[in-house]
Amino acid sequence: MTIDVKGAAEFLKARDDYLILMHSSPDGDTVGSGCALCGALQRMGKKAKAVCADPVPERFRYMFGAFCEQEFEPKTVVCVDVAETKLLGDMKETGNKAELCIDHHVSNALYAERTLLEPDSAAAAEIVYKVIAELGVPFDKELANCVYTAIATDTGCFCYGNTTSRSHEIAAEMIRCGAEVSRINYAMFELKTKGRMRLEQEVLSGIKFFSEGHIALISVSLDTVNSIDGIDTEDVGALTAIPRQIEGVEVGVNIKQKKPDVFNASVRTNGRVNAAEICAKFGGGGHDRAAGCTFAGSTYEDVESAIVKACCEACEKAGLS
Amino acid sequence: MTIDVKGAAEFLKARDDYLILMHSSPDGDTVGSGCALCGALQRMGKKAKAVCADPVPERFRYMFGAFCEQEFEPKTVVCVDVAETKLLGDMKETGNKAELCIDHHVSNALYAERTLLEPDSAAAAEIVYKVIAELGVPFDKELANCVYTAIATDTGCFCYGNTTSRSHEIAAEMIRCGAEVSRINYAMFELKTKGRMRLEQEVLSGIKFFSEGHIALISVSLDTVNSIDGIDTEDVGALTAIPRQIEGVEVGVNIKQKKPDVFNASVRTNGRVNAAEICAKFGGGGHDRAAGCTFAGSTYEDVESAIVKACCEACEKAGLS
Repeated sequence: MTIDVKGAAEFLKARDDYLILMHSSPDGDTVGSGCALCGALQRMGKKAKAVCADPVPERFRYMFGAFCEQEFEPKTVVCVDVAETKLLGDMKETGNKAELCIDHHVSNALYAERTLLEPDSAAAAEIVYKVIAELGVPFDKELANCVYTAIATDTGCFCYGNTTSRSHEIAAEMIRCGAEVSRINYAMFELKTKGRMRLEQEVLSGIKFFSEGHIALISVSLDTVNSIDGIDTEDVGALTAIPRQIEGVEVGVNIKQKKPDVFNASVRTNGRVNAAEICAKFGGGGHDRAAGCTFAGSTYEDVESAIVKACCEACEKAGLS
Repeated sequence: MTIDVKGAAEFLKARDDYLILMHSSPDGDTVGSGCALCGALQRMGKKAKAVCADPVPERFRYMFGAFCEQEFEPKTVVCVDVAETKLLGDMKETGNKAELCIDHHVSNALYAERTLLEPDSAAAAEIVYKVIAELGVPFDKELANCVYTAIATDTGCFCYGNTTSRSHEIAAEMIRCGAEVSRINYAMFELKTKGRMRLEQEVLSGIKFFSEGHIALISVSLDTVNSIDGIDTEDVGALTAIPRQIEGVEVGVNIKQKKPDVFNASVRTNGRVNAAEICAKFGGGGHDRAAGCTFAGSTYEDVESAIVKACCEACEKAGLS
């Protein structure tokens, strides 16, 4: 069943010994939501731990400071920002026992006993914020850092189309409660390693345009990745946002070589072309404006040719060329 | 003399026939502040026009839709976001007659008869917002677009260290009043021309590091600007943010050649080094983390040498090297 914020708060007040699950390949929203909720429950005198099947990237680890480690046998499973249990990776089975899920994905599979779903929220943390407020737990610096980070990362620092006045209002309150926005924004949105700078340089110098400039394509080969010190998959993934931002471009593509004959293609659009439909042709999927697919046993030339053809067809269908 | 928000509103209510001056090399804050104030005064039934000595970049022109063009002989000069009259370019003399200045630069020269100065505001538009509210003019979509744009651009989309809870609160209110944030954010923070991409490529390939990597310096020559189609001063200015974002860098410098022997240096820091102090050595000014200065009658080599020396000294003073 679906419940409201008050219902979720009542449930959380009534139970104890919480295991809070974040989705695998964790992002700022699932980590911030999980850590904030865990910290709030501990501040109520309850036992709680927040966990993720995958390692949490170093740059998100400070949010775990919102709570202390506790040894106990969990009794109540809560999922945050998890649309379906397969997104829990190895913890899928545990997720199937979830008694509460707090989420903002319209595609939520309603797998939990109770689901608090608000698809208009830019981040799951906007809903977690309301629940914590309803629980009556004051936001100290640690909780504020978690909620702020989650909202800021899911909105691209208040830039993406999902940002609402509510996102800004909660951010304002978190700053008043002590969120260290200057440090957090620097780490999340500004800091670039020298390796990342070099990678950008090299990859963007090879950008290609198709379909009268409606499609922009970059590619990252294993040779490139191996030739630059100190870069990781996050650096390679971050490049995906760039082609779409170029004037006149509707579809941006980033082809990443994973193994000599395995390539991932990430597709981003500005809304006139459906990225998920393009990727579905190759067994992939995602959202309207952000999707991906994998090509195995192919040469780079074949992959580029196939994805460009699909993008051109999608542009034509959208009346762009 | 300095006055408060109420004093500024009383002054604006009492007078008429306003000439509102924006600073030269206009940015989103001076244009948004000027256009919002102009529009608000017109909505009160007063005559007002907002002008800039330099051409306003195309991407800011939509803000002029906040008011209609009026033919009249100006009587009252008001400056917005103008710290000193030399920043008015050819309109310096007119600026010397300013009866009111609304600004957030701590370095404001107090050249106007009355100055409403709030250095804690991230943008001059935060102060203009308060004045418009005090004047009792409701924020419609056009005014909201101006105020939102000004705050968003001066805070790097709520990312820079100058962002406060107040910045977010006003943004939230402007969104509720109809500010078209999705369109504005795309145009301000995402959209990049092909020329801009090429400029970034070329300039960043020549980045230099000093003081054990604490200082990163880029430069944009007239030759570079002239060799790339479709770029403007905004594109050159936008590069300024990049050097400071590199791992380990505390001071980022962008030296822009304006004439064969005239150079502007923009200095950005991460807070441990004072940018305004560095630029003050060369007759410039600004904020703690963002400042600028001009060198005339110099060679590029002399300018680079002088600014790097000042930055190195500032880093040493801050215990960085």
